[in-house]
Amino acid sequence: MSAAPARLLHHRTAIETTIGRVLQTYGQPASLYDPVRYLFDAGGKRIRPLLVTLAAEACGAPFDHAVPAAVAVELLHTFTLVHDDIMDRSALRRGRPTVHMKWNDSVAILSGDVMMGLAMRLLEESAQHAPRPLDVISAFSTGLIDVCDGQALDMEFQERSTVSEDEYMEMITKKTAKLLEMSVAIGASIAGAPDHHVAALRAFALGIGVAFQMQDDILDLTGGDAFGKTPGGDVLEGKKTWLMLAAQRRATQVEHITLIGEFFANHGLPQDRIADVQSMCDELGVLNDARHLVEAHTTQAFHHLHSLASSDARHDLEFLARSLMQRTT
Amino acid sequence: MSAAPARLLHHRTAIETTIGRVLQTYGQPASLYDPVRYLFDAGGKRIRPLLVTLAAEACGAPFDHAVPAAVAVELLHTFTLVHDDIMDRSALRRGRPTVHMKWNDSVAILSGDVMMGLAMRLLEESAQHAPRPLDVISAFSTGLIDVCDGQALDMEFQERSTVSEDEYMEMITKKTAKLLEMSVAIGASIAGAPDHHVAALRAFALGIGVAFQMQDDILDLTGGDAFGKTPGGDVLEGKKTWLMLAAQRRATQVEHITLIGEFFANHGLPQDRIADVQSMCDELGVLNDARHLVEAHTTQAFHHLHSLASSDARHDLEFLARSLMQRTT
Repeated sequence: MSAAPARLLHHRTAIETTIGRVLQTYGQPASLYDPVRYLFDAGGKRIRPLLVTLAAEACGAPFDHAVPAAVAVELLHTFTLVHDDIMDRSALRRGRPTVHMKWNDSVAILSGDVMMGLAMRLLEESAQHAPRPLDVISAFSTGLIDVCDGQALDMEFQERSTVSEDEYMEMITKKTAKLLEMSVAIGASIAGAPDHHVAALRAFALGIGVAFQMQDDILDLTGGDAFGKTPGGDVLEGKKTWLMLAAQRRATQVEHITLIGEFFANHGLPQDRIADVQSMCDELGVLNDARHLVEAHTTQAFHHLHSLASSDARHDLEFLARSLMQRTT
Repeated sequence: MSAAPARLLHHRTAIETTIGRVLQTYGQPASLYDPVRYLFDAGGKRIRPLLVTLAAEACGAPFDHAVPAAVAVELLHTFTLVHDDIMDRSALRRGRPTVHMKWNDSVAILSGDVMMGLAMRLLEESAQHAPRPLDVISAFSTGLIDVCDGQALDMEFQERSTVSEDEYMEMITKKTAKLLEMSVAIGASIAGAPDHHVAALRAFALGIGVAFQMQDDILDLTGGDAFGKTPGGDVLEGKKTWLMLAAQRRATQVEHITLIGEFFANHGLPQDRIADVQSMCDELGVLNDARHLVEAHTTQAFHHLHSLASSDARHDLEFLARSLMQRTT
């Protein structure tokens, strides 16, 4: 992966400056805002905020018009992580204690809630520049509903014995990809982009989002993740990924059916069965098909992006998407 | 309390119809939206939504322009109740199991979250009619931040040994009164009301909100509540109301100091000490001063309301405020 263009770093700096301004403006009560500061101090790649500013620029707006909205999207993303971590009883996030572990559930619920309010205020700042301000708000609220739908489906699927691959795709689309789609839609609406540009950017981000999540599932199983996570975490946790669902539907050999059956019955498999799952997914062609799906979604996504006129911002969007997808090569 | 005017019932019907439409539009995933339906099926007086529609009308807008925003405010109010009930570990609300008891914490967190999204979508519908749509959004986001601030202060105060009366007033203002203020501000901004009308309506609603909460605290102690709650619930729970804080500051007699000391040390007092607290608050003039504060805030509130031109809607706002304050006489 090549170094990020200077322009991206410039956007990134503006985003961090606005985050700093928000943290300075909202500090009291400390029990409410200390967790917000803690979360932002953890840093992050700011992929979603950059999608907002770059989409705005690709559609002709000055990128700084979109910076507050970009931070709004990061607040929404962070809010979902805080609340999801409570629901999933996750102890760590990016190697640090989650908010509900460092403080408690109440603090995590409430600091998540207030991030929604902060996000709306920032969204208003950017919406002032938009020819149709309510389009900006609308993209955001739709995204919020989608991620809640996605998280609810995710929790429902954990309880269910059968989930179809289509249902899984719907879940990851809503839980992950829609936030990326929302990011570019907000950027485009700040610029007052024509409908076909908005649609192209949406299709681009949605495709990248689905491809990214699918690839994440593949890398979790195959261990190709450069971040050094132990392979098979999803198998240990009993996560019903597309891979396991496709394997469940395709399995005909006794040993595959038994393995899948144990996985579903026991909500996961022990460490010493991960190699068996890897072999099974390989033998059933599941891994191969998943890789093809990633490829197809990525290609399609870039096809949509290229329907926009060439520009520095379009180039940066492509760079951002490729670096997201290529983090493991 | 006299019967509600037909006009209020008309507004109320429109509000319920829009709630019905929302519940019909958003139904799946069931785990997400069943709790929303459950909460709205519980009914309610819809005070806040009526403040929205009446304020809009009092400022010259057709009331139906404000109905979606009115439901947005009810969604925000309901969202705060669901999340507060988790934090307070409340088992019942209006005599029915709370969402986290009937389902679980995760469902309660997430269905609360999605109500924010639904609220924003409804807000957008009404904002389309506003001359400055972002004023509508801004009143809402400010209100959301305020109620989070208020709840955080409430939780902080529960842990602290000393809280000043001013701090208590700040807390109830943010936690309760600001939601009423937000309601009229949203209505007025839908109508594009001039600043001095918005300010007058805000001051009216804020005053009524503070008076209402103070009166609620008084009635909890004196048992004058027509809803038949056992008097002294706040004392049992160790709630640091204005009454207890004022008593703490004023107490000079040994028995008062001892009583207050036990209350703060043990986070509440047993049933058989409630009468002592009642006598103490009477003897220290705390109850009397609190009643005067209620009176002063109410009078001031109506004074602000009357700066608006006389109209049916203004009359209904007064009726609504009086019925809120007089529910126990």
